[in-house]
Amino acid sequence: MDKISLDHGSGGVASQELLSGIFLKHLTSPVLYTLEDSALLEEHAGRIAFSTDSFVGDPLFFPGGNIGMLAVNGTINNLAMRGAMPLALGLGVIIEEGFSVAALDRIIRSVAEASVSAGVAVVTGDTRVVQKGRMDGICINTSGIGLVAHGEEISGAGAMPGDIVILSGTLAEHGIALLTNRSGTTQCSAGYRSDTQPLHCLIQSVIEEFPCSVHALRDPTRGGLATSLVWIASSSGVGIEILEETLPIRQEVREACAREDCDPLYLENKGMCILICAPEDAGDILAVMRSMPTGKDAVIVGSVSAEPVGEVTLTGSGGNKRSLGPLAGIP
Amino acid sequence: MDKISLDHGSGGVASQELLSGIFLKHLTSPVLYTLEDSALLEEHAGRIAFSTDSFVGDPLFFPGGNIGMLAVNGTINNLAMRGAMPLALGLGVIIEEGFSVAALDRIIRSVAEASVSAGVAVVTGDTRVVQKGRMDGICINTSGIGLVAHGEEISGAGAMPGDIVILSGTLAEHGIALLTNRSGTTQCSAGYRSDTQPLHCLIQSVIEEFPCSVHALRDPTRGGLATSLVWIASSSGVGIEILEETLPIRQEVREACAREDCDPLYLENKGMCILICAPEDAGDILAVMRSMPTGKDAVIVGSVSAEPVGEVTLTGSGGNKRSLGPLAGIP
Repeated sequence: MDKISLDHGSGGVASQELLSGIFLKHLTSPVLYTLEDSALLEEHAGRIAFSTDSFVGDPLFFPGGNIGMLAVNGTINNLAMRGAMPLALGLGVIIEEGFSVAALDRIIRSVAEASVSAGVAVVTGDTRVVQKGRMDGICINTSGIGLVAHGEEISGAGAMPGDIVILSGTLAEHGIALLTNRSGTTQCSAGYRSDTQPLHCLIQSVIEEFPCSVHALRDPTRGGLATSLVWIASSSGVGIEILEETLPIRQEVREACAREDCDPLYLENKGMCILICAPEDAGDILAVMRSMPTGKDAVIVGSVSAEPVGEVTLTGSGGNKRSLGPLAGIP
Repeated sequence: MDKISLDHGSGGVASQELLSGIFLKHLTSPVLYTLEDSALLEEHAGRIAFSTDSFVGDPLFFPGGNIGMLAVNGTINNLAMRGAMPLALGLGVIIEEGFSVAALDRIIRSVAEASVSAGVAVVTGDTRVVQKGRMDGICINTSGIGLVAHGEEISGAGAMPGDIVILSGTLAEHGIALLTNRSGTTQCSAGYRSDTQPLHCLIQSVIEEFPCSVHALRDPTRGGLATSLVWIASSSGVGIEILEETLPIRQEVREACAREDCDPLYLENKGMCILICAPEDAGDILAVMRSMPTGKDAVIVGSVSAEPVGEVTLTGSGGNKRSLGPLAGIP
């Protein structure tokens, strides 16, 4: 077989062939292998974090990754942003009739590699096939569950006046990799690559060493840093002040943003997060983050104030201030 | 707004409007309302069941239901088939640019109604919008988690020789409702309606009264009854014998299947299940099932044998036997 057919989604013989030939070849969790309607996990005590995320592949393959890797890391990061240790993933795949089996194989292999690399197994899944023309290629949903340690209350609503704002990595890498790749104005070899990576180990390291010191977490995906900061300020009922000159934006990314006429503060990130923590631990937390590969570029970029509530203020190097709003329209 | 635009998927201002205007209007769980990257549930001890399922709406609205209701009940039933009590649902929605806001509102209202009716809240979600032509309308993924009582080991691999096979309701109702609706050969008013309904309360009632007596469960969705029975026989390493004349197929459904030239044993069901249990409790379990609205048509249809392994045998009223295979091709 070199193309997916409607038979592959029938639930019958051909579906079994697709499952065995591609999905179970790469995804080797013994729990998934039983092909039950749902996965049954071992006994766990604790608060469960639960998340779902959809990926439509625009494009499916891009510098630094593909939709499969993105789907795994995206849901792992959604769980990590509540301070959860991810436990297991669910994979829902909808495929267009006629889709290349080789491309599907490559994507599912990438799902498996990202899952093994993060140490979080795909334990349940579902595959549908739709008629040609009813979908553009493939779309993936990843759901995930995780466990949250006792006492941790990390959410977008947890930022407190006096807290310090840390970014775990450089900004706009994913967004600019997609934009330059799409517009063809910049060569991929110029070093624009998606930053897709899982952040749960970074966050767990911080939490284990500084329990209850992390007050808020958010990975600034769609809408970018500005939209996520506004959301935190509004949810927490605080103001946030950011110093523009501290923002970690690589020179190449700055230049590409200028060429593409877009603002890096509104571009998507896929492997960095905003971490807001108690001021007394900020320096030590930063040191822990920088000691890990996924947090090596971490920096302090600002602080939380009591007022103005819901506002994010960007202070330039000359002292000029401007208020950041959430994304309006499409970047 | 009367049509979905790409803005609605940007993650910015318009996305918030879509969330508030439709999703949070209908889905009222306080956990969902926080719009965090993942939902955080209360402390639970026990084994977690975890499932994911995708729905592409072919069609979106049909006699007896729509894609929203189907997505909620489908995932609840996936959990119920492991003996799990569903705890929470995740909702991933991908929408085509230009999709009718009124249709979306109707679908999400139906998700909410099914969720309230089943007593299982949608606690986390995700919405994407794709460019016009890149998807046909809408597709939905529902993931779900549940808890399994200590000692219950229900799976497709649990059927044992001597066990009794019960069907919880009449066959092929969903499949024939879709077929007759699509082909237009039969009027909807003739009484063809999807059987979509959640089965978790039915299963929980049986398990509570007869702990560890239910050995296998499966809802025969894609591939129908025959494919599910073959899967159980093969997974459990047993044979299954079914008495044809006991199969609960309504006369109207039989007639429609004859007209549409299709076999009801291979048509999809969305609100009934195969329950395989210890013979000594079968009569009492049947009585419990029949006492509930979702199991009122339950009947014993066969039994499990040691051999031939992996085979499902259908015995006709004249004693003639034929072997049932899994679905080949598309029904």
